[in-house]
Amino acid sequence: VTAAKPTDGSAPTYADIKAAARRLDGFAVKTPLLESPLLNARAGARLLVKAEPLQRTGSFKFRGAFNKISQLDDAQKRAGIVGYSSGNHAQGVAHAAQLNHVNATIVMPRDAPRVKIANTRSYGAEIVLYDRQNESREAIGEKISDERGATLVPPYDDPDIIAGQGTVGLEAYEQLNGVIPDLVLCGCGGGGLIAGLSTALRRHLPETPIHPIEPAGFDDTARSLAAGTRQTNDRHAHSICDALLAPTPGALTFAINRRLLAPGLVVSEQDVLDAMATAFSDLKLVVEPGGVVALAAVLANPEAFAGKTILLILSGGNVDPGLFAKAIAS
Amino acid sequence: VTAAKPTDGSAPTYADIKAAARRLDGFAVKTPLLESPLLNARAGARLLVKAEPLQRTGSFKFRGAFNKISQLDDAQKRAGIVGYSSGNHAQGVAHAAQLNHVNATIVMPRDAPRVKIANTRSYGAEIVLYDRQNESREAIGEKISDERGATLVPPYDDPDIIAGQGTVGLEAYEQLNGVIPDLVLCGCGGGGLIAGLSTALRRHLPETPIHPIEPAGFDDTARSLAAGTRQTNDRHAHSICDALLAPTPGALTFAINRRLLAPGLVVSEQDVLDAMATAFSDLKLVVEPGGVVALAAVLANPEAFAGKTILLILSGGNVDPGLFAKAIAS
Repeated sequence: VTAAKPTDGSAPTYADIKAAARRLDGFAVKTPLLESPLLNARAGARLLVKAEPLQRTGSFKFRGAFNKISQLDDAQKRAGIVGYSSGNHAQGVAHAAQLNHVNATIVMPRDAPRVKIANTRSYGAEIVLYDRQNESREAIGEKISDERGATLVPPYDDPDIIAGQGTVGLEAYEQLNGVIPDLVLCGCGGGGLIAGLSTALRRHLPETPIHPIEPAGFDDTARSLAAGTRQTNDRHAHSICDALLAPTPGALTFAINRRLLAPGLVVSEQDVLDAMATAFSDLKLVVEPGGVVALAAVLANPEAFAGKTILLILSGGNVDPGLFAKAIAS
Repeated sequence: VTAAKPTDGSAPTYADIKAAARRLDGFAVKTPLLESPLLNARAGARLLVKAEPLQRTGSFKFRGAFNKISQLDDAQKRAGIVGYSSGNHAQGVAHAAQLNHVNATIVMPRDAPRVKIANTRSYGAEIVLYDRQNESREAIGEKISDERGATLVPPYDDPDIIAGQGTVGLEAYEQLNGVIPDLVLCGCGGGGLIAGLSTALRRHLPETPIHPIEPAGFDDTARSLAAGTRQTNDRHAHSICDALLAPTPGALTFAINRRLLAPGLVVSEQDVLDAMATAFSDLKLVVEPGGVVALAAVLANPEAFAGKTILLILSGGNVDPGLFAKAIAS
């Protein structure tokens, strides 16, 4: 008799993430793991920084989208795909579809930043705009899916998406080159990135705590981990971290994350702006608000992290120039 | 009888650059070669971008400084080193000295950007400030060198410095992974980076033209290549490219560059600001004015580069937040 292995329904395995890495080889950027002596001195800690803003389409979202779309069979590819997103997922899906010669329809809010709409279109996607106040993007996406037989590519609650994002963890582990971090910090919206990351790292770093970082007002994963059940954010909450605004943890992502994650930490808007300025000056990296929360957590709580070796995931860099200018000038 | 091989006095060889790469292994960042589909579409060309802003100290200067300082003998290391620079070389020398446990004295102009003085000091260097109008940095540096027996680490006209910078070329060639670029573009101040780069690339890409890019008013290398002798810039010239303000090509660097380089190209201040904004939006990279001239040359002359595959060197990212904000907001 062997001990029962915990399972989470369709949670991807370590082998699924290795398979995703093989699919992504030659398509996704193996983003560098950066270290800055200036940043280490500032933080009083050793920070090893996985730089996903340098990924194709400016965020990790390309990984999951490519892993899912590249596995469609020929009939599915001919029928096309449909996705809904206001930002990074839209661009990742559009470009992954383009590289796989698959038609993509992306449902985006009419008030999304114009640069994100323009970028998504430039990857060859058809854009369907909707009214955020009066229409449901899920309903529009499902209608298109039904009418055209197009495959829905969800933003996080999908085993192929999670496995693709998990390749961030595989790469980071190889790049650590034998260094064992004391802890890992990673931003968390719907939870797909950190679910894949923790599945990959658990194999190699079984003792290292992995903390999700969220912006104030969107700490649903922190509260859900504490409660043991999925909690919801106040629907009137606001944050500049537009990449991390999921209303509640995903069903599948939370089933993984409740088993693998350490407690969550929360950062303020000012912490985020300060961390963007530090990434500018010390790392020469453009990081968006939702992409920088892991660094913000360290810089805002120096006493908690003093002397530690920390693996930080910076997840994206698609930020409006005006907001970036404000952050670095403050 | 074999054909005489051209020599340039103490010009470093390909083997010297390979040796420098071995010294730098584990100390310098192997900076990524980035490619952005958005940027390619914008340029109408395939751009492969070597991202030296991600190097330690924010520019390629760390490479040459480390290669030189790490080769000093024990007595020289005890006597310390001295360098003069208003910017990137100062930081590269200070940090390379720190890693080699060597005392560094850096002669910097009193009006250098405060962040560059502070960064240089944070790498453990002693800073000697001088008055740019009434004092000679070379004289001050030589006086310190004489008094203390300290070794001078010059900014470019030195075979160990050139060999260290040449490792940019070795890495880029490996990262090209078999792709043969139609041309190579690289910024040029004193000429150390492009002299090392072209020495490394000549071995692997003997047919590929390598063009130096300079800012308007500081096109001394372009004019020197055309004339066959070293030309000087107008001493009243001004440019925002503070990393590229050498008054004339180096003696050693020009001896190499006149043999290996294709004609030079010149970019305007507006070309530079526009390219910084494009690197921000498409590459998520912070690039300083003097670091971005190669990209500026492509974007300002789309018809000249249409359909080409181009290896671009972006050389540094140490830029004042106010100037960066101005560039991306324009």
